[in-house]
Amino acid sequence: MARVFNFSAGPSALPLPVLRQVGDELADWQGRGMSVMEISHRSPEFSEVAGRAETDLRDLLKIPDNYRVLFVQGGATTQFSAVPMNLSTPEQRVDYALTGSWGKKAHKEAARFSDAVIVADAAGSGYTDIPPFDSWTVSTEAAYLHYTPNETIGGVEYPFIPEVGDVPLVIDASSTILSRPLDVSRFGVIYAGAQKNIGPAGLTVVIIRDDLLGHARDGTPTMLDYKVQADSGSMSNTPPTFAWYVAGLVFQWLKSQGGLEVVAKTNKRKKDKLYSCIDASDFYSNPVDPASRSWMNVPFTLANPELDPVFLKTAAEAGLSNLKGHRSVGGMRASMYNAMPEEGVDALIAVMRDFEKIHG
Amino acid sequence: MARVFNFSAGPSALPLPVLRQVGDELADWQGRGMSVMEISHRSPEFSEVAGRAETDLRDLLKIPDNYRVLFVQGGATTQFSAVPMNLSTPEQRVDYALTGSWGKKAHKEAARFSDAVIVADAAGSGYTDIPPFDSWTVSTEAAYLHYTPNETIGGVEYPFIPEVGDVPLVIDASSTILSRPLDVSRFGVIYAGAQKNIGPAGLTVVIIRDDLLGHARDGTPTMLDYKVQADSGSMSNTPPTFAWYVAGLVFQWLKSQGGLEVVAKTNKRKKDKLYSCIDASDFYSNPVDPASRSWMNVPFTLANPELDPVFLKTAAEAGLSNLKGHRSVGGMRASMYNAMPEEGVDALIAVMRDFEKIHG
Repeated sequence: MARVFNFSAGPSALPLPVLRQVGDELADWQGRGMSVMEISHRSPEFSEVAGRAETDLRDLLKIPDNYRVLFVQGGATTQFSAVPMNLSTPEQRVDYALTGSWGKKAHKEAARFSDAVIVADAAGSGYTDIPPFDSWTVSTEAAYLHYTPNETIGGVEYPFIPEVGDVPLVIDASSTILSRPLDVSRFGVIYAGAQKNIGPAGLTVVIIRDDLLGHARDGTPTMLDYKVQADSGSMSNTPPTFAWYVAGLVFQWLKSQGGLEVVAKTNKRKKDKLYSCIDASDFYSNPVDPASRSWMNVPFTLANPELDPVFLKTAAEAGLSNLKGHRSVGGMRASMYNAMPEEGVDALIAVMRDFEKIHG
Repeated sequence: MARVFNFSAGPSALPLPVLRQVGDELADWQGRGMSVMEISHRSPEFSEVAGRAETDLRDLLKIPDNYRVLFVQGGATTQFSAVPMNLSTPEQRVDYALTGSWGKKAHKEAARFSDAVIVADAAGSGYTDIPPFDSWTVSTEAAYLHYTPNETIGGVEYPFIPEVGDVPLVIDASSTILSRPLDVSRFGVIYAGAQKNIGPAGLTVVIIRDDLLGHARDGTPTMLDYKVQADSGSMSNTPPTFAWYVAGLVFQWLKSQGGLEVVAKTNKRKKDKLYSCIDASDFYSNPVDPASRSWMNVPFTLANPELDPVFLKTAAEAGLSNLKGHRSVGGMRASMYNAMPEEGVDALIAVMRDFEKIHG
């Protein structure tokens, strides 16, 4: 098998040891003569898988006891609706910071359910920086403050956590969760689609402070009610069992790496190398304010965009896949989630340097 | 590998050739050096997987062109909310037939969103029959009529399709879809959780007549709006790509079996054999009206329930797994979806006969 270095923004690369284990035990899991996909979510065997995944995630993120962990369906986009339905009334003010495509989508959906106020908007910079917090117009009356700590498309990332007193912070952590330690106690709700740093698409992790449960408004679909999910251990109906199992293997793999402190060091080295390569050259550029650059998603452009297809072809021939930039940004994008080994980034940098020598 | 015969009600057995293929190509799909889990849902490669799955499902069920097929998340239970939110106003009457646990749950959720009227209720028989249609109190004013053609827990199945003129029929087909041909044109909406006859848990198939799109009420979460899903090819956000891919392989396997006419013949033989075995004995019994017995889920009890654990142990030793009945019914339940080979049913019957000889 010739594995490539896969820079996909999501669904994205999974750790090879995890994929190998999943493949090996696909049709005969734990010697039981059946796949983990073929057993009841209520069986003792699956309960153990589910429970261990939660325990390992709690260990990795040091999740305090007064937080519940939900394993649900629908992606972060479904959370765009679930958050206002669970945490606010239709009349209540809810605050949103807009720093890219995903934050804008979250706000647009929330505006259907509450008085969703834009308290910061990076439109002025073309969404290439994070507006300093002292420019935000937050309210202490808001039911919550929502932001997107890492914007997958723009490649911008918050260098700070907003300070808003008792207003719960709610974040879409899809593309940054588990990339480094996180002080969970600072947040009311942390939600993340699995398909970047957790596991296969089709699973969403929600970490919620327990005082925020039990406030879903009338008209909230039962499956979107956080309390229903918390009270049932995310088994109010059949959960995405296979994705949950793979996520559990990813959590074990992260622990085997030494936990998030070690993972963070690797991720920091990876992004420092790549940004240094870009900044050292007039041939490559990244538009993002250096203080707000993403660790996970690095968009970059060539001085001559006509060379984009040539670059992508050259990279593909070197075993580097899915580097094409998002259609709204153009150029290239290297997504370097936890499963991207440092050698993959080294290989990318080598290709970039060679390419510049020839075409620069 | 010693595969067992797995009678789980869901998540349930998948076809072994499908599991083998999934396992073989888990870390290196189509020689691309990555897993199908690791590629963008918007890539040409995944679009082909998604499109072929839909085409094959359309072939299998002969779905007319004026129906859309959605591949969504959340399970049938999420559809319990989505159906009234998409098809009715809060004031409008919606009709529900209650023939078991799932129909009751669907009605309970709909009553949160509309004037949900119970037009038939099998409570009188303890949910062991389907009330004859001439006893139903349906209304031509209802926005739709909902029923559950097969009740997984009770093991009852409709021997007829209700005739209600222009009122759209909406069915939760989770545990009967693809077990035999179905005249899709008789229905407004057919929805089904994947984890019985389609694929892994975490995928829900919705087949909807196109005139029923575009009527979602205010306050419907965008991801639950059928029109949004239809307009985006179920890719409004990241879909459960792995489950979709496995479902596609199951559809191909069903076609390779000869399609649903052939599958139906096998399923009929399987259930006829098992019910004959039960009915020929005073030791085993099934409580369901013979006219309304499920093809897929066969609950049965022993004359002496104290022998239940002995029976389950004996069956497990013979390689027959997950025969324990639902906690609300007791006894045993044999779920025999498409992936259960006829030899599995033969093996169960052999165990039952031997067990009766010893303990009867």
